Amino acid sequence: MATQEYPQTAANKVNRYGNRANYDAEFIHGLVNTTPVLHVSFNPEPGSLTPIILPMIGQVGQYPGDEEPHVYLHGYVSSRIMKMGADSTSEGLPLCVAATKIDGYVLALTPNSHSYNYRSAVLQGTATVITDLEERLWAMHLVTNSVVADRWENTRVPPDNVELQSTRIMKMKITTASAKVRDGGPEDDKKDLKRDGVVAKTWTGVIPFYERLGAPIASTYNKVKTVPNYIKTFVDKQNEVAQRTANEAAMLEYGKKK
Amino acid sequence: MATQEYPQTAANKVNRYGNRANYDAEFIHGLVNTTPVLHVSFNPEPGSLTPIILPMIGQVGQYPGDEEPHVYLHGYVSSRIMKMGADSTSEGLPLCVAATKIDGYVLALTPNSHSYNYRSAVLQGTATVITDLEERLWAMHLVTNSVVADRWENTRVPPDNVELQSTRIMKMKITTASAKVRDGGPEDDKKDLKRDGVVAKTWTGVIPFYERLGAPIASTYNKVKTVPNYIKTFVDKQNEVAQRTANEAAMLEYGKKK
Repeated sequence: MATQEYPQTAANKVNRYGNRANYDAEFIHGLVNTTPVLHVSFNPEPGSLTPIILPMIGQVGQYPGDEEPHVYLHGYVSSRIMKMGADSTSEGLPLCVAATKIDGYVLALTPNSHSYNYRSAVLQGTATVITDLEERLWAMHLVTNSVVADRWENTRVPPDNVELQSTRIMKMKITTASAKVRDGGPEDDKKDLKRDGVVAKTWTGVIPFYERLGAPIASTYNKVKTVPNYIKTFVDKQNEVAQRTANEAAMLEYGKKK
Repeated sequence: MATQEYPQTAANKVNRYGNRANYDAEFIHGLVNTTPVLHVSFNPEPGSLTPIILPMIGQVGQYPGDEEPHVYLHGYVSSRIMKMGADSTSEGLPLCVAATKIDGYVLALTPNSHSYNYRSAVLQGTATVITDLEERLWAMHLVTNSVVADRWENTRVPPDNVELQSTRIMKMKITTASAKVRDGGPEDDKKDLKRDGVVAKTWTGVIPFYERLGAPIASTYNKVKTVPNYIKTFVDKQNEVAQRTANEAAMLEYGKKK
């Protein structure tokens, strides 16, 4: 990928807890690509005081021939954001995209020192609705298989004309991006660690937090008797990685990099 | 509570899938209060083209004496949003707050009909940093116990002056709010349901998705030998409700209200 690390600018510089900051492109893209719902913010019109947030499904990917990766966002033709992206000038609709993972609740001696273990990325850029059919199909494939690996190949494809009419893909050029990470156990102030009575009676540690996929439930019209292997494998792998990631984050020494 | 249902205006009206829309205040507040990380968006300066999103911890609550519930957001004194909230005019800093829960991946015969089961709320309003000590402590208690029930009472409280100096609470007046819900199994088009070959080979249904809390991991300086009951009970209850909610959503008939 062309971008190894995003530059630190006034727009994306992490002021609070600079030691938790991360501008690594691979890390940021990976976080977007493993977050099942992104939060996308935009101003409904130029000069709006209050932005809007939409939950959306998206992926970072680099289309063959492009010089850098973009964020691809999936949506419906009639939605406001897609209309704005299509109506927009060639510079595109300014967007902010956030991807957030909680890895644990960090319980300290005093409420003020409580925290979350988390990984969080915020990206800004400008987005346009893509019109090239080949790139649209490439992006739909990318997004579909991000939800369940190999799902595209195991469904009725390609989309027909009516389906292509109703689905829009926005492509955001990434202008700034940054991430923050917090892991490890709690970190209490010396003043509290010295208070034997407080330490003796207050449980401190981490409650790991992760996303879990349950046993698949067939639809009323499903005719496939057993859950296919590609789905079982996907569910098991997701669950293993999610639980392990949260547990590992909890057991790291606070503030140390993996 | 004073507000039973938020009015439908141009700002919050749900255009796409109007049947999934929900303006019920209790539902919206409940969603905010069970979402461990909220996404908060604002414009870094008036006339900004691109908003910023911050992941934050918050709760809806009604302070004794207030006529309506507000969103309380927890943050650090040095963060940009808190500086803006404190510097702001008496009207407050315009914010958008989003709370999103995924309940399942909905797998249909064709990628275009894939969906998520989800519950999503978006609130807009104006926020100020609160200065009244009693209300600040009330809000810190509210937010702390939203992460782990009864945690406040089981830690070293109240916060001392240094702690009070470093923590800020923003209070957002809710001006508009709406929610969307999708539940049930997949819904395919007749054209695909009639294709016996497609139906025979494509598994359709829902993979339930929920948040899971793992077994608590003690800190290096923890002296409490067993995990206290209030934490165990909290973890078990959260896990039971989360899994049940996702499974129930998957088994509802598509589009029917619970």
